[in-house]
Amino acid sequence: MNAPQPRLPVLPSRAAAIFEAIADLPIISPHGHCDPSWWAKDSAFPDPAALLVTPDHYLFRMLYSLGERLEDLGIGAAPGSVDSRAVFRCFARHWDAFLGTPTRGWLEHTLYTVIGVPVDLSPETADAVHDHIAEWLEDPANRPRALFDSFGIECLATTDPALSDLGDHDAIAASGWTGRIIPTFRPDDLLNPARPGHAANLLKLGEMTGIDTTSFTGFLNALAARREAFRARGATATDHDVPVLMTRWLPRDQIEALYDRALRGTLTPSEAARFYGHMLTEMAQMSAEDGMVMQLHVGSTRSTNAQLLKRFGPDMGADIPAPVDWVTGLDALLTRVGNDPRLRLILFTLDEASYARQLAPMVGHWPSLRLGPPWWFHDSLNGIRRYFDQVVETAGYLNLAGFNDDTRAFLSIPARHDLWRRGVALHLADQEERGLLRTADSARIAHLLAHDLAIDAYRLEG
Amino acid sequence: MNAPQPRLPVLPSRAAAIFEAIADLPIISPHGHCDPSWWAKDSAFPDPAALLVTPDHYLFRMLYSLGERLEDLGIGAAPGSVDSRAVFRCFARHWDAFLGTPTRGWLEHTLYTVIGVPVDLSPETADAVHDHIAEWLEDPANRPRALFDSFGIECLATTDPALSDLGDHDAIAASGWTGRIIPTFRPDDLLNPARPGHAANLLKLGEMTGIDTTSFTGFLNALAARREAFRARGATATDHDVPVLMTRWLPRDQIEALYDRALRGTLTPSEAARFYGHMLTEMAQMSAEDGMVMQLHVGSTRSTNAQLLKRFGPDMGADIPAPVDWVTGLDALLTRVGNDPRLRLILFTLDEASYARQLAPMVGHWPSLRLGPPWWFHDSLNGIRRYFDQVVETAGYLNLAGFNDDTRAFLSIPARHDLWRRGVALHLADQEERGLLRTADSARIAHLLAHDLAIDAYRLEG
Amino acid sequence: MNAPQPRLPVLPSRAAAIFEAIADLPIISPHGHCDPSWWAKDSAFPDPAALLVTPDHYLFRMLYSLGERLEDLGIGAAPGSVDSRAVFRCFARHWDAFLGTPTRGWLEHTLYTVIGVPVDLSPETADAVHDHIAEWLEDPANRPRALFDSFGIECLATTDPALSDLGDHDAIAASGWTGRIIPTFRPDDLLNPARPGHAANLLKLGEMTGIDTTSFTGFLNALAARREAFRARGATATDHDVPVLMTRWLPRDQIEALYDRALRGTLTPSEAARFYGHMLTEMAQMSAEDGMVMQLHVGSTRSTNAQLLKRFGPDMGADIPAPVDWVTGLDALLTRVGNDPRLRLILFTLDEASYARQLAPMVGHWPSLRLGPPWWFHDSLNGIRRYFDQVVETAGYLNLAGFNDDTRAFLSIPARHDLWRRGVALHLADQEERGLLRTADSARIAHLLAHDLAIDAYRLEG
Repeated sequence: MNAPQPRLPVLPSRAAAIFEAIADLPIISPHGHCDPSWWAKDSAFPDPAALLVTPDHYLFRMLYSLGERLEDLGIGAAPGSVDSRAVFRCFARHWDAFLGTPTRGWLEHTLYTVIGVPVDLSPETADAVHDHIAEWLEDPANRPRALFDSFGIECLATTDPALSDLGDHDAIAASGWTGRIIPTFRPDDLLNPARPGHAANLLKLGEMTGIDTTSFTGFLNALAARREAFRARGATATDHDVPVLMTRWLPRDQIEALYDRALRGTLTPSEAARFYGHMLTEMAQMSAEDGMVMQLHVGSTRSTNAQLLKRFGPDMGADIPAPVDWVTGLDALLTRVGNDPRLRLILFTLDEASYARQLAPMVGHWPSLRLGPPWWFHDSLNGIRRYFDQVVETAGYLNLAGFNDDTRAFLSIPARHDLWRRGVALHLADQEERGLLRTADSARIAHLLAHDLAIDAYRLEG
Repeated sequence: MNAPQPRLPVLPSRAAAIFEAIADLPIISPHGHCDPSWWAKDSAFPDPAALLVTPDHYLFRMLYSLGERLEDLGIGAAPGSVDSRAVFRCFARHWDAFLGTPTRGWLEHTLYTVIGVPVDLSPETADAVHDHIAEWLEDPANRPRALFDSFGIECLATTDPALSDLGDHDAIAASGWTGRIIPTFRPDDLLNPARPGHAANLLKLGEMTGIDTTSFTGFLNALAARREAFRARGATATDHDVPVLMTRWLPRDQIEALYDRALRGTLTPSEAARFYGHMLTEMAQMSAEDGMVMQLHVGSTRSTNAQLLKRFGPDMGADIPAPVDWVTGLDALLTRVGNDPRLRLILFTLDEASYARQLAPMVGHWPSLRLGPPWWFHDSLNGIRRYFDQVVETAGYLNLAGFNDDTRAFLSIPARHDLWRRGVALHLADQEERGLLRTADSARIAHLLAHDLAIDAYRLEG
Repeated sequence: MNAPQPRLPVLPSRAAAIFEAIADLPIISPHGHCDPSWWAKDSAFPDPAALLVTPDHYLFRMLYSLGERLEDLGIGAAPGSVDSRAVFRCFARHWDAFLGTPTRGWLEHTLYTVIGVPVDLSPETADAVHDHIAEWLEDPANRPRALFDSFGIECLATTDPALSDLGDHDAIAASGWTGRIIPTFRPDDLLNPARPGHAANLLKLGEMTGIDTTSFTGFLNALAARREAFRARGATATDHDVPVLMTRWLPRDQIEALYDRALRGTLTPSEAARFYGHMLTEMAQMSAEDGMVMQLHVGSTRSTNAQLLKRFGPDMGADIPAPVDWVTGLDALLTRVGNDPRLRLILFTLDEASYARQLAPMVGHWPSLRLGPPWWFHDSLNGIRRYFDQVVETAGYLNLAGFNDDTRAFLSIPARHDLWRRGVALHLADQEERGLLRTADSARIAHLLAHDLAIDAYRLEG
């Protein structure tokens, strides 16, 4: 067994100089999907397969594309029933298939740098690597709170359903541990009638807040109450997963009539879309008033593999991006509140054709808009290059929202920020080389992109 | 105060060698929006804010996106009422926000190279820079005609409404000054019923030409007469701002019936679109006959910010690109006249997804088509790189129209051509490095792209 | 006359090292449009114009765009009536127009490397070059079989109509010559009612197979029989030219009713589209059963120049790419059979906007899918760069199908594989330089992309 070779070894010199200065800045993670219970309980993470393979849709989608069965990766199995070693072996057998993907880079960083695995992963070393990880997990120094501190995380936001009691966040606060972990208000289950259980959720909202949600006015008041409850736990932002973007502003009688039918679960699909479109504009108005930053993640067609959806549920790696028309889709919302400088709306796309055509011109005009970093499939070194290439000249740097890792894989957070910072350095070096930036300018911009802009965009200064 | 550092300092060596040979070629500006009255009157340009800030939508859109109010930039104010120093200070406060944008490069060139401002612009130097510019403007050597000569402009085309009396062009000709400034025929106000005052304009056209425009035949004859009047002042081209491209060829009785309703202003939106689509094909036929080069600027969704439109009018920085289907949209026009080698039609897009997918294949097939340079948001160093990358292999270089600066900011013309020539050099150096072009070939192509192709595409040899 | 300078002279050093190792690997050509009769008869290729100009739509479309008439290039003329020298002169006059296009590179390789023309082609040398080629063609060492061997071709697939008797393939087999030339099953004329002669072809299929095709069941059985006949001649794949992708799965009674109307030629266009969409799913099912790899070439809008279509027929250089929605378009097919690991479906697009947005996520999920190499206009050095840039991070390398040249210009095959291999080397060098691949990894991937993946994707191991 050879010791793992260094990866991402040496950037070209001009990029390396830029990178050096930002490589060790604290991590701001203003949007992601880590589980707050990890830090509430501070228990050891589970076995290697459950840590690295089973929950990572980037990873198991690739294995599935190569002919592996999801069952053999522990997907859909009862927690105790999975053979961690067998799953890990299956993964290791396909290690080469990840060459060139960001998953490979994130995992190498996790394995070799974070965990300190002393050998290159390969089909032959699968068991040894597995057992090394298992041992590492038992060390108290590798518990969630200790890692949070050693990763240099300044602030991390989780994403929480609007109906969450935020008990884990309260437990963290009560524990005396000082890591800054804040919730994010995610009300899709209340706003989008296309989601399962919508009508029931409207009633649950009433019970939870003690506000009568059988009227639309009560519904708005209850939403405001939940936003307030999130802010009381440190939240500065909301987040919305919008499959198809079509905001609306309906007359009061129309939206009230739709709400009545929503309560009874009798909206047609097009009525449901109108209701949801209107509610996004209501949320933007509330954001202008209460100062919560609003995030829109738009354009993922969910669960396109009907067979897998039926057998295993959603999030099985078959979510595929769709084109997005941002101008038409945001028109009602922006007409209503887009000129209000109190509103901060951060946009995320999976449709790169909209970068230069719509998003950069829009965030370079509207005072309320900022452009989020490359999302999901595009959070990669080439994806970052395409992003800067297509947005900066029209949007400028100050209309960008810095970086967020958007991950549920906690151990990969340092790797993801490292990759972003390398991407920033490579981009700025290219700008310098073609005469577009002076060295002093690009050093300042690098610091903004690696750290400051995220704080500013998400109003995390407080 | 430090002296401004050189910007765009040294291109990589292979690119620098290509650039050197074309950097000082005369400027051909075959399409733009300069005001011919500048050269007719040859008065001093007004104060610094009115020169650089208030008329530049690239610039004030960015300031608006950062939270400044348009009122504070002098937008919508009576000319004498604006405090030039205050506006300039506001702009200087946000100077950093333009880093990475072409606006920054154009303004640095204007300030440091053209005007000779001796200090770096910054919030602290705003007043000093402002006053330096104000002083510079009073020097007779910086009047429009003198600058035209010192910039090395060989030919400059303005863009003039079809109903313009072209008095400024006549005044220039009568003055004895020999700068070649020619008009361009822009008939949108006569062709597109969606534009304000359309019906009234049809009658004005009759009055102006002495041709009865109450019949469609008279309308066509009057249009031909205006084209002739433009050609008599040196015009070689027409220009069309087409929000949604859908050309048509309607039977005579249908277009006549639509024209009758256009005269009364009673066309529905879809009828108006059909009328406009037909008229574009009529224009192409007239171009084939009278030899005027036809330009189509397609796909800008105008004034998407309703609130600003209502308060300040159009052109407030909220024009956002839309997708364009060139194959369907041009079908009627090309079927009618696209194989006629006398027609020269230059296409401009803001939808980069159409570069490789439609435009390059189309201009590499139709004898009538040429592809215009990157337009508006894409007239930038990265935009130029994307353009060459996606069009050259399918279109070749000879089906391109060279460069045009499309600006209303006269002082930025040298900067814009300088940037294009740097983009050309960087592109050709990349082609050489990967073995796609020999050095001698790329030198010839550089000359074509910087100078000759614009003359050829716009038939300016005469 | 100067001797031709070397082209594609020296790649940057890191890329050159990768390229060296794969430059001379045998050629796998699993998809293309060479004529099997060339090797059945092994006659000399005809005169230079008929060899290089008249059949090459890349070439004559460019000449047409520059104002040449197709008649003057021998298009549409009786074979004996064309003046080869005159056509070649016309082509040589525009040699410069091909600078920067892959056509220029392919032709330089063909002229200088394959044929050994000793002077640079130019308008002045046109006759000398023409005559050199004519002489070269008469040498028996330059007959089709000899060139096949000297080019180092390991396997070449032709594309053959489903109703072909495959007589040329039988003749090759019977000749004792051992070059591996295999057919590909192309059933569009039977599946797509929009193609001319569809109803008659259904009956011809019955005659050819001896199976009664007046029922839908008989039609399916006859198709299966033809697939079997192709496999018996070594075919491993089918190919489908799909103008608009919209697969379907119809209930049995509906598809039978449509088939009855197809037999009578009375389907409406939308019924024809539904029929074709269903039949693509039937083909996918047959592929899962008989193991034939299925190829979909999607999204070319054919013959957009109506005047040329009328005068010269199809394939006159006016086929223009259209946007493709792969998720919606493949939904029925993938829902039916996409999870079946026996199915191998290779996708080709001309819509680069779909690379990162849909195709890479899809092939990185579905076990049945692989992504084909850049097709047609995008089979170029920049096109290859865009392809790798946009697909690798999400798809990985192992979900790609390697290269195929897709050409009917046999002499250009070595040039096309050479260009691909250079593109591979440049891509991998860029990945190494930014720290994404180790040297040993990129060497392995280079070998896969140049040779092994094509064998694996097309199941050519046998």
